[in-house]
Amino acid sequence: MTEHLEDILATVRPLEPIELQLLDAQGCVLVEDVTVPVSLPPFDNSSMDGYAVRVADVAGASEGFPAVLTVVGDVAAGQADLLHVGPGQAARIMTGAPLPPGAEAVVPVEWTDGGLGEGPVSGMRAHSAAPEGASGQVSVHRPAEARAHVRALGSDVRAGDRALAAGTVLGPPQIALLAAIGRGTVRVRPRPRVVVLSTGSELVQPDEKLGSGQIYDSNSFALTAAARDAGAIAYRVGAVADDAETLRSTIEDQLVRADLMVTTGGVSVGAYDVVKEALSTVGDEDEAGSGVEFRTLAMQPGKPQGFGSVGPDHTPLLALPGNPVSSYVSFELFVRPAIRTLMGLEDVHRPTTRAVLRTDKALTSPAGRRQFLRGTYADGEVTPVGGAGSHLIAALAQADALIVVPEDDTSVEPGTEVEVVLLG
Amino acid sequence: MTEHLEDILATVRPLEPIELQLLDAQGCVLVEDVTVPVSLPPFDNSSMDGYAVRVADVAGASEGFPAVLTVVGDVAAGQADLLHVGPGQAARIMTGAPLPPGAEAVVPVEWTDGGLGEGPVSGMRAHSAAPEGASGQVSVHRPAEARAHVRALGSDVRAGDRALAAGTVLGPPQIALLAAIGRGTVRVRPRPRVVVLSTGSELVQPDEKLGSGQIYDSNSFALTAAARDAGAIAYRVGAVADDAETLRSTIEDQLVRADLMVTTGGVSVGAYDVVKEALSTVGDEDEAGSGVEFRTLAMQPGKPQGFGSVGPDHTPLLALPGNPVSSYVSFELFVRPAIRTLMGLEDVHRPTTRAVLRTDKALTSPAGRRQFLRGTYADGEVTPVGGAGSHLIAALAQADALIVVPEDDTSVEPGTEVEVVLLG
Repeated sequence: MTEHLEDILATVRPLEPIELQLLDAQGCVLVEDVTVPVSLPPFDNSSMDGYAVRVADVAGASEGFPAVLTVVGDVAAGQADLLHVGPGQAARIMTGAPLPPGAEAVVPVEWTDGGLGEGPVSGMRAHSAAPEGASGQVSVHRPAEARAHVRALGSDVRAGDRALAAGTVLGPPQIALLAAIGRGTVRVRPRPRVVVLSTGSELVQPDEKLGSGQIYDSNSFALTAAARDAGAIAYRVGAVADDAETLRSTIEDQLVRADLMVTTGGVSVGAYDVVKEALSTVGDEDEAGSGVEFRTLAMQPGKPQGFGSVGPDHTPLLALPGNPVSSYVSFELFVRPAIRTLMGLEDVHRPTTRAVLRTDKALTSPAGRRQFLRGTYADGEVTPVGGAGSHLIAALAQADALIVVPEDDTSVEPGTEVEVVLLG
Repeated sequence: MTEHLEDILATVRPLEPIELQLLDAQGCVLVEDVTVPVSLPPFDNSSMDGYAVRVADVAGASEGFPAVLTVVGDVAAGQADLLHVGPGQAARIMTGAPLPPGAEAVVPVEWTDGGLGEGPVSGMRAHSAAPEGASGQVSVHRPAEARAHVRALGSDVRAGDRALAAGTVLGPPQIALLAAIGRGTVRVRPRPRVVVLSTGSELVQPDEKLGSGQIYDSNSFALTAAARDAGAIAYRVGAVADDAETLRSTIEDQLVRADLMVTTGGVSVGAYDVVKEALSTVGDEDEAGSGVEFRTLAMQPGKPQGFGSVGPDHTPLLALPGNPVSSYVSFELFVRPAIRTLMGLEDVHRPTTRAVLRTDKALTSPAGRRQFLRGTYADGEVTPVGGAGSHLIAALAQADALIVVPEDDTSVEPGTEVEVVLLG
């Protein structure tokens, strides 16, 4: 099992980076160090709504003995033509607006009479309703130190600083920083396109009528959802009948939109296991590196597995077993790490933890096979749900963890500490 | 702050449920108890590739003294016309294929000679290459108990059982179960459509040239990404200039695609804070329940906040402050819970934990305001990154946690245990 995973991770390579619009790069891995082109803030600006003043003019000011200054106008955010603030003058200034020449500090509007000639005010009246607020006189009730309520140019980041390192995963705050330094696009590894198809002549699409001997296709739905959950763009092809030629041509058709192909079913030892049959001749047979190898792994569920590459571009393909629980567990153990490797993520595995087994009777496990049982995890304890059968989908839907029983253990007593894979 | 959040959560109602295709419902909350219409498996079927036999025919069989049976044909998965297995007979059977009438158990192909007349085999040859495998004789080397390697009808779920309860969040395993019981569509609360717009005449789109007094719009990018992260379908409108009429008409235009509107900027006490100005007259003024209330909260960052509803459908609107860190923290504390409430999720808040403050000097915090500082959390410890300034985007991009300093604390010593919001 470990060897199979190692082979997959040694073969699958991160996708070639592309330049993406910022919001299309969400969740992707940056491949370049991003340098700050222009300092942030790009200019000294006010952190408050208030008045830009000279320090000497407001020295010693109090509500009883205010400094009375002449308002020379407004400085709004985004304003390019700046007033000059001379001795005895103030400019009304808004949060984010550039500190005008001559001014040394900002006093918040709450420290003034707002130009109304009465007591302290709680804010400014809208300019559109009261344009006279940008003129007249203002009484300032408190002194201000130099640079008070001023955000200095470059106090966030400086031009030439490294904003983000290659390898960073772009979440909302990283996207905020990239936008703030003016980056509209960014070079990242794209999300892999994963094509999911299930095989089996017994499979019927949900909502259709079930005939004798038929069951509903659930694997193609489950794995498409799981591939998305892992970060991929997933395409569900649906169920293909057990006919090697049909399967081969379906896979060849789908290659054009696949960075990774995932099939379920048809990998065991039966006479109609057409995935094995078909995959030896997909793509160019003469080219090195092509072909899919089928293995029997020492694990339960998920014993039969196939892995290799198909088609002219050697598109990686994972062939999972067809039992619903087997295919889902195989996805978690093998396909999810492959998808996350394609994305260039460092952290490709589900988190694991140790937990105390909470159960009435001992768990049994076949000798020589690593078993993955479904369970629910909470507060350091894990409780098995359902049995070991690979067809038990209802129990799988209640589980949030896999309980790992090592190869050598054939029985695990209640209260034993076990390894648990958290399905998140 | 708590009151503001309570008002939001008391006002925002989960969206009306709709019927969605299974894969479109991923991550959504189920609003109905789903009952199993037909038992799973729907018929007794084989869990192995092998031979369907009668128990008496293989009693006492061994490799030295095999039971030799006549192969009456193949039973493949999905096959409707079943053979009858009489005394002395066997049907070759594939995993998932219905147990044919007359047969009582399945022996795996590895317990037989596969019809080749030699020792035990490891599998079957493909039917297409060796059709004779479905006929002739097979030697069985081991006995089988009744029902061995047979999955019984209904052993996973039974018709009438509750498959999933209302309130379940649909992840891959739940989607697997719904597909398996034949549900192609399901009734869920849809993802909310969230329209994000930033306001400010100083804002320039990334990749464009920055003029004097201008900065790049980062809030609309950050909050669109954050809204998606919370589960929403998010639309980024971009930056609107500080003009009440433009803002009002933009909001009215966008209402058609909004379950929730989020604005940034223009909510403070300045003379150009047009969000306040514009939002009193959006939609139908005469209708009850319309209107946005602006508040000053005892928190830092994020002091000025607006919340209410706009337009004929009383679309909820959250007006966040414009400083990048303020808007992001406000999103985490107020908008994310609102989005998750719209989705019908139980768990609307980010997880919090206690952590030991790892820092060289004491943190300071204004009296009477709950402060949210940015930090990095690991192994029970949290380390502040950057200062308290609301414009420090670079530090925000390094953080994965918010450190909460309560209203009454003005200083927090290194080593103190603090509350931490994990940004995940």
